[in-house]
Amino acid sequence: MQVIRAEKYGFCFGVKRAIKITEKIAKKNKNTLTLGPLIHNPLEINRLESDFGVKVQEDINNLGDSKSVIIRTHGITKQNLDELKTRDIAITDATCPFVTKPQKIVEQMSNEGYRIVIFGDSKHPEVRSVMSYSVTPPIVVGDLDSIKSLEKVPKKIAIVSQTTKQIEKFLEIVSYLVSNSLEVRVFNTICNATFENQEATRELSKKADIMIIVGGKTSSNTKQLFFISKNHCPDSYLVENENDIESSWFKGKKICGITAGASTPNWVIKNVEDKIKNL
Amino acid sequence: MQVIRAEKYGFCFGVKRAIKITEKIAKKNKNTLTLGPLIHNPLEINRLESDFGVKVQEDINNLGDSKSVIIRTHGITKQNLDELKTRDIAITDATCPFVTKPQKIVEQMSNEGYRIVIFGDSKHPEVRSVMSYSVTPPIVVGDLDSIKSLEKVPKKIAIVSQTTKQIEKFLEIVSYLVSNSLEVRVFNTICNATFENQEATRELSKKADIMIIVGGKTSSNTKQLFFISKNHCPDSYLVENENDIESSWFKGKKICGITAGASTPNWVIKNVEDKIKNL
Repeated sequence: MQVIRAEKYGFCFGVKRAIKITEKIAKKNKNTLTLGPLIHNPLEINRLESDFGVKVQEDINNLGDSKSVIIRTHGITKQNLDELKTRDIAITDATCPFVTKPQKIVEQMSNEGYRIVIFGDSKHPEVRSVMSYSVTPPIVVGDLDSIKSLEKVPKKIAIVSQTTKQIEKFLEIVSYLVSNSLEVRVFNTICNATFENQEATRELSKKADIMIIVGGKTSSNTKQLFFISKNHCPDSYLVENENDIESSWFKGKKICGITAGASTPNWVIKNVEDKIKNL
Repeated sequence: MQVIRAEKYGFCFGVKRAIKITEKIAKKNKNTLTLGPLIHNPLEINRLESDFGVKVQEDINNLGDSKSVIIRTHGITKQNLDELKTRDIAITDATCPFVTKPQKIVEQMSNEGYRIVIFGDSKHPEVRSVMSYSVTPPIVVGDLDSIKSLEKVPKKIAIVSQTTKQIEKFLEIVSYLVSNSLEVRVFNTICNATFENQEATRELSKKADIMIIVGGKTSSNTKQLFFISKNHCPDSYLVENENDIESSWFKGKKICGITAGASTPNWVIKNVEDKIKNL
């Protein structure tokens, strides 16, 4: 069986940057916390804790005696950030710049009277952080059906996307809004790395007869890769590490494609690949 | 053979308004001109001339001794309007308010630094009038292929549509721009009457086995109705009046659908219908 990696996969700019920032800060301050997991990959989060002592804390009111807090790649709410600033704690912002951008857009556009539409998952921390910057209640939609069920489409809309969503789905929603509104300001905030990883996954899944997508199970962009892959290659599997691999999957397969989410470290991908090659 | 009129067809708000304005002005001033044909229907233009003495003049430098000029529904260029204002002549603006809107949008957005994209036919008088309000060179595209052939997609775009275009084609272009730009301000300037006439034509052409579309051959919205109709009913014919009707078209047909462009007067539609019924 031939094993092929996608043309583009794995760590994006924002994740690399956040890990570098975190390692640097943690070396200086032994009691550093991140507010929620820095990235959506539990293996890398474990490594940051075991190698650098970085702990994860979900609750802003439970930071203990830590004097150093790092903002995760997905950002946090404006309210939590404002609250943190009132405290005697060093704040290091590792929010991905591609997430800071929709935060700013949403703040400005809602101030200018545009109704905010966010294409994304309202439970995802990135979307929660972006939402919190709107000065009026934002509309968060996960798919075309949700936007169609709106009783009334606002007349003036500004729309952004969760950075890790598929452009095709974003365009479906944009088209619906344009058809039913007077003005739609469309900000294409889908990040390029996401887009490139998706394109490469699409290409590879067309020729592979089994696809392994490596990444955290709460990672939005990893899940998108899985959905795209499954479209072309029904035998697609999402694994967090090599222990999730089952040998029965590969029976009779000729080409195994491997790809990985933007928060999946290279060492995890390597372990998965080695396991497959040694089956 | 059953003859059915579309649910919606014919004169739109802007055309009705322009004819009413023109008749009123022409009654007061016997030597009234329109700059280019008021609407794209030669039969109605002839009626306005024979009943009210309204003449058409294409050239702004050839207005003779007329002291009353009417701006056509499609608007004129900003430069021509400014020139007219310097002269000793009464100007009556019959520009459709749905055309004034994109003129204003294009002027404001180009002043704010957005690159203007106009979906439409660059030779159509409406598009020429809208273009003229952009303070930077606008990009005019008639279809998706033309926008794809652009060497570089601007980063900040404001897009409007010729009022009589099909929304589906507009959305194709919007989707391409959103995928390749950072911000696209989309103003849906397709007029509702156009949209409703198109929807009604689509529905009727699905059940008719012959479709007659009545309207001027230079009328953009009439041509759109013809294209939509032809998609569902191959035996679709565009006629200007009853003299264009050929009896051979109707041989063996069971349902004849009739629709008409936004500039087609009711009396012309009636003549066509009577001719068909008496075949």
